[in-house]
Amino acid sequence: MKVMAYEKVEQQKVEMPGSHNCQVRWLIGPRDGAPNFAMRQFEVAVEGYTPKHSHPYEHEVFVLEGEGTILEGDHVHPIHAGDIIYVAPDEVHQFRNVGKGPLKFLCLVPNDSMNKPVTQAPECGVEPRS
Amino acid sequence: MKVMAYEKVEQQKVEMPGSHNCQVRWLIGPRDGAPNFAMRQFEVAVEGYTPKHSHPYEHEVFVLEGEGTILEGDHVHPIHAGDIIYVAPDEVHQFRNVGKGPLKFLCLVPNDSMNKPVTQAPECGVEPRS
Repeated sequence: MKVMAYEKVEQQKVEMPGSHNCQVRWLIGPRDGAPNFAMRQFEVAVEGYTPKHSHPYEHEVFVLEGEGTILEGDHVHPIHAGDIIYVAPDEVHQFRNVGKGPLKFLCLVPNDSMNKPVTQAPECGVEPRS
Repeated sequence: MKVMAYEKVEQQKVEMPGSHNCQVRWLIGPRDGAPNFAMRQFEVAVEGYTPKHSHPYEHEVFVLEGEGTILEGDHVHPIHAGDIIYVAPDEVHQFRNVGKGPLKFLCLVPNDSMNKPVTQAPECGVEPRS
């Protein structure tokens, strides 16, 4: 068993192309012996965003803090603390911070996501169409 | 894609033997098409607890609100908002609310957990030894 405050887990810069001002913590995952899926926590700074991309695995997301959007294809959904988001495999998506403080969320993925390809979508890094 | 406030998901009473004053919401799971794992949210009322048991699948937990404990075998860990807990397969565990308000947490499980046996541990429903 592992019990700890999530903020004690080391934060790392997200280096994926198309991301801007994002940090990640790997809270629970294969290094703990977790056999199936991993819990990560993302922090997107003001005006930051995650890559606009798709991949053949899902995301299960819980928003902890802040104001943001998630892009679903061409549609933008506002997101807030307490929202859940299911991103199905192969859906184009992008998280953006549109608030005045950090956007924090949990984002869980299956362990085999590490071995699967990520497809960058066009228009990455520009304002999504509403 | 599914985007919604978690509190809009219907809450159901936990009927498992050995539980007391627990509710659950199935936030994301097989009914949404999620292929690998399910995100549930538990709410344990004041003086409530989950069963003291083990099962051959893991839990990945994030505490949202409240003051509680998790039993690891004979050892009691205090838990608070912002704590993460990894319960490995076959570990005996039990959550308890020891605060003055509800204890709320996310608890994720692999989808095949529904087909696996749960083993009730002795001393269920009595105060765990510290």
